[in-house]
Amino acid sequence: MTFPVVGMVGGGQLARMTHEAGIPLGIRFKLLSDTPQDSAAQVVGDVVIGDYRDLATLREFARGCDVITFDHEHVPTEHLRALEADGIPVRPGPDALVHAQDKGVMRAKLTEIGAPCPRHRIVSDPADVEAFAAEISGGGAERLDEGRWSGDGSGGFPVILKTVRGGYDGKGVWFVRSAKDAEEPFRAGVPVLAEEKVDFTRELAANIVRSPHGQAVAYPVVESIQVDGVCDTVIAPAPGLSEELSAQAQDLALRIAKELGVVGHLAVELFETADGRILVNELAMRPHNSGHWTQDGAITSQFANHVRAVLDLPLGDPRPRAEWTVMANVLGGDYPDMYSAYLHCMARDPQLKIHMYGKDVKPGRKVGHVNTYGDDLADVRERAAHAAGYLRGTITE
Amino acid sequence: MTFPVVGMVGGGQLARMTHEAGIPLGIRFKLLSDTPQDSAAQVVGDVVIGDYRDLATLREFARGCDVITFDHEHVPTEHLRALEADGIPVRPGPDALVHAQDKGVMRAKLTEIGAPCPRHRIVSDPADVEAFAAEISGGGAERLDEGRWSGDGSGGFPVILKTVRGGYDGKGVWFVRSAKDAEEPFRAGVPVLAEEKVDFTRELAANIVRSPHGQAVAYPVVESIQVDGVCDTVIAPAPGLSEELSAQAQDLALRIAKELGVVGHLAVELFETADGRILVNELAMRPHNSGHWTQDGAITSQFANHVRAVLDLPLGDPRPRAEWTVMANVLGGDYPDMYSAYLHCMARDPQLKIHMYGKDVKPGRKVGHVNTYGDDLADVRERAAHAAGYLRGTITE
Repeated sequence: MTFPVVGMVGGGQLARMTHEAGIPLGIRFKLLSDTPQDSAAQVVGDVVIGDYRDLATLREFARGCDVITFDHEHVPTEHLRALEADGIPVRPGPDALVHAQDKGVMRAKLTEIGAPCPRHRIVSDPADVEAFAAEISGGGAERLDEGRWSGDGSGGFPVILKTVRGGYDGKGVWFVRSAKDAEEPFRAGVPVLAEEKVDFTRELAANIVRSPHGQAVAYPVVESIQVDGVCDTVIAPAPGLSEELSAQAQDLALRIAKELGVVGHLAVELFETADGRILVNELAMRPHNSGHWTQDGAITSQFANHVRAVLDLPLGDPRPRAEWTVMANVLGGDYPDMYSAYLHCMARDPQLKIHMYGKDVKPGRKVGHVNTYGDDLADVRERAAHAAGYLRGTITE
Repeated sequence: MTFPVVGMVGGGQLARMTHEAGIPLGIRFKLLSDTPQDSAAQVVGDVVIGDYRDLATLREFARGCDVITFDHEHVPTEHLRALEADGIPVRPGPDALVHAQDKGVMRAKLTEIGAPCPRHRIVSDPADVEAFAAEISGGGAERLDEGRWSGDGSGGFPVILKTVRGGYDGKGVWFVRSAKDAEEPFRAGVPVLAEEKVDFTRELAANIVRSPHGQAVAYPVVESIQVDGVCDTVIAPAPGLSEELSAQAQDLALRIAKELGVVGHLAVELFETADGRILVNELAMRPHNSGHWTQDGAITSQFANHVRAVLDLPLGDPRPRAEWTVMANVLGGDYPDMYSAYLHCMARDPQLKIHMYGKDVKPGRKVGHVNTYGDDLADVRERAAHAAGYLRGTITE
């Protein structure tokens, strides 16, 4: 058999769903997972238990893999370079991935290529944060009419502070109203990025997939609705988004992928502003929560296209199969037994698509998602919200 | 976690694709496979290698499973009864499954419940075959005008002979033109069923899924095109099938499932005759080749609904997502490297859905299938046939 072996580093739900999407292609899938209980480790045949931070473990794992890809962005850049030096294709490669690992590097590069970003600067201490706030308060060339961009606090506050590495889902992110609030972010000893608080009307995501050949496909731009800093609902396509802004967002994501040399799936999280502009919020170089709707709503899912890209196969059609597809995340609630909720959810909606990750339920933890699709957006949204709420236990009928 | 463990006996492609469909449900999947190289064993996490014909192995495997289901029909009926006696739910159960294991039992039961069948009889030797041929040649109440049903040979020949157990894909089936031809089928010492050669215009399949609760869903009736006794192409829905005959076929499959106590997927393979009747050819109580189109063409696939049925969960919507879906089997050809054919197939048709089984290529062996869908049947058929032929190596451009 000449079918390749794809090595996946990380045992989370993205690895689980990538494995699921790889099965039809007949490829071999090999997993490096922290524990046998991890989401993907439960369902993959060929699992190595080990620590991705250890180079010897990575090297041993990579032996016999035709290509390495990732469930997360946490593998040290120097380890990735070592694997490449060993002759193992790493996709996305370290030069691209660093932009998803380090928010400081990301902002510098995006600014260099002219991608629209919130105003930002690496800051060294609370006094520096105050200085940054004063800068953006001062307005100047970048300041918009009516002060939209600079927040509405005093002297440029509030300001967003982010550790440049290690944050996700609202972790490693602070919203500070004064220099006095700004001490905690500096305690970890990690560089801190300050960003203006953008006065956005909603969040969008532009998902694209790019192959080593440079072929790329763009999914419809989606709206992502966050609750408490965690993605709650994704609507595909983003309702009411102008064709112009949609094309702009797709072009921006394709350009970022090309300029940064991304291979595989790239999610560009965006702010849409009241004055009709888009600004880059975050980048993720792997299948992404804002693309989960594609499993049931697109001709080719983000997971299938990610596998095709890392293998340098021609990419699949990214177009939607339904007028509207809605994804709702299932978070853990107080009640640990989600399986018993299947009866009601499945009986109520025979078209419902449930995707659970095999994770233990903890309050607030993402343990799965549901997809719904159809022609009537209100109905599609209601069905997704109901199922997610019922599984969580916040809806009881 | 309260998610159940589904035990699957048999490591073939049906188990592989059932595992794939079970991943989103968050259930645990445990596999009993002959070898670690079997199609499903390559992609399942929890695999036991062992012989399903050995009761002790089955019992050990079943410990810790919440329900047992099957990739094939070859587990001895008495072993299934032993598992049931141990308190393990077996779905479908032995009383149902025996009808898919033994063609003699199947014909007797179908005749008892009034399901239309070709004329048939258990025969004991070549002389008995000649007597059967003479019987059906004689016509009588069951004989149609112009002798359609009785074949066109002399004295009722040709006749179909089948060993009552162990045959599939044309194996264990003989097409005999005289008593002299009829010696080989008796050599195995297995009872032999004689059936008239039905003068059919095409083959159909009615696929349904039934749960222990008795809930059932019916997929659209499909046309199945065989080449050399092996399924080549499935068209969903069957082109030009009258609504009346379609409803009749679905009702028949639902009635058979109920009368036989089937749980899970049931495929009823049918002959459509020139005078507009349907006759039952074969039964299969598991996901079936004639239902592979549902992976990409139906709201809920046969595999997902089989899992839901064996777990007694409410069943998913079986309706089609496209006007036409075509499945074409990929058979092994002379060239073992199918993966290199992906480049051309994927580039030519970005909507193509490939499903490979991880099997070594041997000439004539089913190693995968492709699905295509769309509004234009001629186009959808051409794309499926091209991809299957290109992967096999019989089409080279």
